[in-house]
Amino acid sequence: METTLTYSPATHKPLTFHTAREDFIGGTDNARAYLERCLETIDAREPAVLGWVTLNREGARQAADASVERYRAGRPLSLIDGMPIGIKDLIETRDMPTEMGCAAFKGNFPKRDSALVRALRDAGAIVLGKTVTTALGFLDAGPTTNAFDARRTPGGSSSGSGAVVGANMVPVAIGSQLVGSVIRPASFNANWALKPTYGGINRGERMGFSQSHVGVHAGSAIDMWQTTIEIVQRAGGDPGHPGVYGTTEAPKPIKPKRLAVFESEGWPRLDAASREAFEKALSAIAAQGVEIVRRGQSQKLEALERAIADCTALSMRLNAWEQRWSLANIAEQHMDTLGPSLRESLELGRGLTLDDFRESLREREAARTQLAALASECDALISLAACGPAPLIDDIKGTAFPTGDVSFSCVSSLLGAPSVTTPVLAVNGMPLGIQVMGQHHDDAKVTGIACWLANASLG
Amino acid sequence: METTLTYSPATHKPLTFHTAREDFIGGTDNARAYLERCLETIDAREPAVLGWVTLNREGARQAADASVERYRAGRPLSLIDGMPIGIKDLIETRDMPTEMGCAAFKGNFPKRDSALVRALRDAGAIVLGKTVTTALGFLDAGPTTNAFDARRTPGGSSSGSGAVVGANMVPVAIGSQLVGSVIRPASFNANWALKPTYGGINRGERMGFSQSHVGVHAGSAIDMWQTTIEIVQRAGGDPGHPGVYGTTEAPKPIKPKRLAVFESEGWPRLDAASREAFEKALSAIAAQGVEIVRRGQSQKLEALERAIADCTALSMRLNAWEQRWSLANIAEQHMDTLGPSLRESLELGRGLTLDDFRESLREREAARTQLAALASECDALISLAACGPAPLIDDIKGTAFPTGDVSFSCVSSLLGAPSVTTPVLAVNGMPLGIQVMGQHHDDAKVTGIACWLANASLG
Repeated sequence: METTLTYSPATHKPLTFHTAREDFIGGTDNARAYLERCLETIDAREPAVLGWVTLNREGARQAADASVERYRAGRPLSLIDGMPIGIKDLIETRDMPTEMGCAAFKGNFPKRDSALVRALRDAGAIVLGKTVTTALGFLDAGPTTNAFDARRTPGGSSSGSGAVVGANMVPVAIGSQLVGSVIRPASFNANWALKPTYGGINRGERMGFSQSHVGVHAGSAIDMWQTTIEIVQRAGGDPGHPGVYGTTEAPKPIKPKRLAVFESEGWPRLDAASREAFEKALSAIAAQGVEIVRRGQSQKLEALERAIADCTALSMRLNAWEQRWSLANIAEQHMDTLGPSLRESLELGRGLTLDDFRESLREREAARTQLAALASECDALISLAACGPAPLIDDIKGTAFPTGDVSFSCVSSLLGAPSVTTPVLAVNGMPLGIQVMGQHHDDAKVTGIACWLANASLG
Repeated sequence: METTLTYSPATHKPLTFHTAREDFIGGTDNARAYLERCLETIDAREPAVLGWVTLNREGARQAADASVERYRAGRPLSLIDGMPIGIKDLIETRDMPTEMGCAAFKGNFPKRDSALVRALRDAGAIVLGKTVTTALGFLDAGPTTNAFDARRTPGGSSSGSGAVVGANMVPVAIGSQLVGSVIRPASFNANWALKPTYGGINRGERMGFSQSHVGVHAGSAIDMWQTTIEIVQRAGGDPGHPGVYGTTEAPKPIKPKRLAVFESEGWPRLDAASREAFEKALSAIAAQGVEIVRRGQSQKLEALERAIADCTALSMRLNAWEQRWSLANIAEQHMDTLGPSLRESLELGRGLTLDDFRESLREREAARTQLAALASECDALISLAACGPAPLIDDIKGTAFPTGDVSFSCVSSLLGAPSVTTPVLAVNGMPLGIQVMGQHHDDAKVTGIACWLANASLG
């Protein structure tokens, strides 16, 4: 089965949960019926999308029935009680294996919930299944295809989370981002997504990288935000971090006064149609009275661009050092399970010294300082969320980025800055996101600005 | 078998490795013979000390033989090639289970090395066995007894690591500290120990707490330091941290100009003999021309004391929030495996809100600022490493601190500051350490000052 859909921001109908919840309370719908509709969509779309590693249909039905009872008693546990959700298969779940897209972890089943999974269950959400990740969250692709065109990549590493939300199988899925793993697949599959401030959502047992973040993919800004806050109120951010600030009420649209455009190392790689779509959107934003700051108009913006000019390679060096011991463990026993990108990272890590790593840390810190300096110059920064719409899988197989170029999404990982992508553009019938990036802890503000952009008819 | 030894800093002969290594190179000793002597000591002392959970004698012999070959070929891998070492059983080892002192993890065997274990093996060290930890590194005691008196506590949570080094079974053992878990057992068992700057040694998979640190217990300052640096050069610090700074050459003794004495909440709980021994030591230090700054003589020191006045409770609150989701996982399936201190922490965590946690983070940050302010007032801070020598197990069973009062050792955990304890005092024939605590990244400097103290005949 092959799927080709034409994406249009104006007519796209994403799956939402907050709307259905009103009907749960009113008694005209319920969590079990909602789940069954999700399962029907899964049955129809999954043969082409291949976004799930494991589905726990019976467990989900039991959880949905319990939710129905809570609503009937007038006691839902949270704003996401009864919401079916997908969990990236890097994250541990007590009732399903956690295989991380890597044969070395085949059958790995620690039988415990990661922090955010525990929080989701405590909030009454329904943990429906595990979504496909590239191997160990790196670049080697899994089987998943794009929700809008099965010949195209879903992006990575949160391939499944991006695709199952894009295909309306679930309203929300959890992803994670080390380089560009939430914002990019979200863009490719017409998701909203929040990659929060570093440390904003508790990573649980998987803390091995100083640039990794948990992120939330959703069909709507409201579901994205409410899921984030319901998790953070229960499991917090990473140890020692305050967690995403905000209430469960989704931020209202915020019209910014001034937005700075960051280009990053991805700018020269943009295709003409994507660049044109973005420039047209910028003109539309400016026409509504928002000042747009471009390269050359601000010394501080130029300084940031210089500091992120080598963003991807710098991130890869940091990650390679930080994972070299765990990759060495795997290589020793299961070398054959490592794909080309992981082998390359292992080699890169082995070639680095502690002093190299320390120098990379200083470069990253310097880039973060340049971001902070922009606080007085703009309300937020914007850019495309990817170098263009999802490429054809056959076109990028065997390249350095077999799930798509990471450069636009890598910036917020390096900076630890909050970023929200909103699916406001279509290029050649495929979705393309615009991302809003802010200062640390501006998660609510960038969400509000992204909501304003989504309402501003930019397409 | 019962052991009662009388400790005297002047006559105590700890087991050292760096001295033997010279003989390995000279060919008059070798790693296999050294290991066999360790195993003889273990056979003699372990029936009373009970410091090991698992011993891998055959694996250690093979590793020792390989080390012998490397020395024979003139190619040792590092300064710790051939060194037998114990690993606290919170830390994963590919060839032994990791049961964390908790029946919920009975048989847990992930078959991979944690970052520092991997680094130790890469440096040629011999991972001899896993040492007893209190349950999950908290307060509920295991079977281990004090190396100098089997009726007394070895301290915790690094109970086994402290005791096996104190009993000369191995020259070095790895511990970890969340509240007072390295410095206290080291003091009780006459170890040297370094609890490094926060993030200084890679914690590997166990990153669940923002106050946890890996530490190194040793019979000598040189072995302590060289082991630290050999690990850090290979596995670094925690992700995103620069790791302990310094070369493999152990710091030379550093005579300080000015030392500030911190009292902490433990001061009123000191027994008269320990207080007298400490005051006598301070007088001896002053007599050698070092200025001693006491409470009341410095406003900044007073400000620090106020900021750490609630150190233990503040630390417990932070930890309780940070571990509530993982304890909830265990409680759900294995409630009967949780001892009283873990149940109490679970209850405490459940009663806290995210805002409570954020307020505790701010208090901790404020305390760290007070420490930083002291940088211009003194070269380092000193204090006792514990409230006195190891208490009798029967006297503290069922109390809030069943492995001894944590207050003196908790300070460096809260502050994330480097601390070294040196076994320079004896009280009633039992060891008592003096700790030197410094500014962040002053690990080498506090080690050097501790070496000077050790040479200064304070006892």
